[in-house]
Amino acid sequence: MKKLTSTPEEDGFYMPAEFECHRRTYMVWPQRSDNWRRGAKPAQRVYAKIAAAIADFEEVVMLVNKDQYTHARHFLDERIIVVEMSSNDAWARDIGPTFVRDLSGRIRGIDWRFNAWGGRTDGIYFPWDLDDQLAGKVCELERADCYSLTDFILEGGSIHVDGQGTALVTEACLLSKGRNPDYSKSAIEAKLKNYLNVQKVIWLPRGIYLDETNEHVDNICAFIRPAEVVLSWTENQQDPQYLLSKCAFEELNKQTDSNGRSIKIHKIPLPEPIEITEKESREVDFEPNTLPRMAGDRLAASYANFYFCNGAVILPAFGDPQDECVKQQFENLFPERKIIQINTHEVLLGGGNIHCITQQVPK
Amino acid sequence: MKKLTSTPEEDGFYMPAEFECHRRTYMVWPQRSDNWRRGAKPAQRVYAKIAAAIADFEEVVMLVNKDQYTHARHFLDERIIVVEMSSNDAWARDIGPTFVRDLSGRIRGIDWRFNAWGGRTDGIYFPWDLDDQLAGKVCELERADCYSLTDFILEGGSIHVDGQGTALVTEACLLSKGRNPDYSKSAIEAKLKNYLNVQKVIWLPRGIYLDETNEHVDNICAFIRPAEVVLSWTENQQDPQYLLSKCAFEELNKQTDSNGRSIKIHKIPLPEPIEITEKESREVDFEPNTLPRMAGDRLAASYANFYFCNGAVILPAFGDPQDECVKQQFENLFPERKIIQINTHEVLLGGGNIHCITQQVPK
Repeated sequence: MKKLTSTPEEDGFYMPAEFECHRRTYMVWPQRSDNWRRGAKPAQRVYAKIAAAIADFEEVVMLVNKDQYTHARHFLDERIIVVEMSSNDAWARDIGPTFVRDLSGRIRGIDWRFNAWGGRTDGIYFPWDLDDQLAGKVCELERADCYSLTDFILEGGSIHVDGQGTALVTEACLLSKGRNPDYSKSAIEAKLKNYLNVQKVIWLPRGIYLDETNEHVDNICAFIRPAEVVLSWTENQQDPQYLLSKCAFEELNKQTDSNGRSIKIHKIPLPEPIEITEKESREVDFEPNTLPRMAGDRLAASYANFYFCNGAVILPAFGDPQDECVKQQFENLFPERKIIQINTHEVLLGGGNIHCITQQVPK
Repeated sequence: MKKLTSTPEEDGFYMPAEFECHRRTYMVWPQRSDNWRRGAKPAQRVYAKIAAAIADFEEVVMLVNKDQYTHARHFLDERIIVVEMSSNDAWARDIGPTFVRDLSGRIRGIDWRFNAWGGRTDGIYFPWDLDDQLAGKVCELERADCYSLTDFILEGGSIHVDGQGTALVTEACLLSKGRNPDYSKSAIEAKLKNYLNVQKVIWLPRGIYLDETNEHVDNICAFIRPAEVVLSWTENQQDPQYLLSKCAFEELNKQTDSNGRSIKIHKIPLPEPIEITEKESREVDFEPNTLPRMAGDRLAASYANFYFCNGAVILPAFGDPQDECVKQQFENLFPERKIIQINTHEVLLGGGNIHCITQQVPK
């Protein structure tokens, strides 16, 4: 497929919102035992459950390293398309292409550079070469020409769009030292405008407390329709998250979207803080080039890390009393969608949640 | 995708002829330096040329091992779809699925077992595990349910069909000791009938002299339309090939196809015998589990190892005086197709030719 050096904006391509119709979903199979406990077996079961849930609504392609291919094909629901592809870990949102569409429905990919959430500055593992190659490989599978950036680091989890000209990001992530230190805030905003083809970028200051991605927006806030977002929230003023969510709320409250509309904010509660246990920590292999999973570390659990698929929302559960009421809240927010809730504790232990491990191809 | 335990015959699926319309062509990128001289670089250039020639007529997907992906993507024509997939070597005909179609145009794959042309009896390399997995992986890419054989060894190069109920094979290959020693000739014929959904199997006794595949039919003879074949031929009675071609001719001459038609035979000349040179032999790495390429070994060169694609024939050339006249002969045989001739000496050195390295998906 073609590597394009123009920009989507120049060519009339734009990133549709995730809540619009999808062609399919990509996921990447977890396996590295220095990030996932017990040889990633518990995480694999949850990935398989999420894939099967999505497959009730749209096609799912699971990308699997060579050495896990036979097992994954055997283990996964036969509706899942299993494709061999190398990766360093299992975060389709962050390493997959960002797909853009034009008005005639043609699809192209954006292949951002990837450096494991901060490279040698504060990245999570080294090396990340296979992750960085994955987006281009997925574009080949999709027969999608590809906007190939040579020097700009970005992960899919650090952006949300409304599909109508507005993007949502966090300063904590996009201005972090490990990504694009030579780009000013306005230069980064210009890149987003050129590639996502948006006219307005809303910068939330922060994301979720201790989120190792430098606080990706997709863990705290998401568009659920134009001019309407959900925001992770706590009423507990002792929780360090309180201030972070409050800043985000205030920023959203005073902003308008690219069409001049003010933004309706639905607060969704956080689960009670969840920490890595001694046992969970011991079950992760030691590897000096990988961020360790230490007992007592607070995990960045958030219900905002859900995924839209055609006709449904796949929503995290944490075994928390809030699970039920968040599900109810989502059912009220999306009367037209089925709400499927899955316990994602094992994904959370690896550093993310449902949105982080999925990537949609728009229709 | 589904693994099917029924047979194509039971389900109303059959293998179309190669000269019918294709959806696309699969190829597998060569790289192993114990089979291809000079780190496979000369062979890669020829593979790329063949891929580009086919891409003028239909989509080409090149399957590439992880460590060669970046190079292959950079090296190949941008029209070629480059997909990561592990293999032990580069013979799409023999390791890819055999595709079957039903009358409504649905496609399914057949995943024969593969053992490197004879396993530990007289196979060409060990191990062959990745090759054996490749057909199933390609079926996933094609969203094709797959007839998965657990115990029956067969390579795509050992069969030809007319798409109207007739298959063409050689006894030398299909009855070889390294493939299915526990199957009688009639049991093998039954398998072919069940899976290719043919009513008649024509058994040629032999193939091309010293063909290391145990004399695949695709190197000596091919259907060019129903009840019409080309047959590799020599008038030189001193050549050991003389008797082999003569036996094939006589068998074809006395046979009828599944529709009771006698078979029109077009003799095509062989090139002058080609041997591996000292230099070529030295440029292949030594590896005890791989058939060595010895100086003085005669290569199984044959123009019959060509490939049909939509609107064209991709035909080998050997730098032989016959090249031109075979091209002329093909132009007369196929007034409706473009004849593209490519020097395939480097593919021949690795043990095959154009037909061996291509696999069509029927439309």
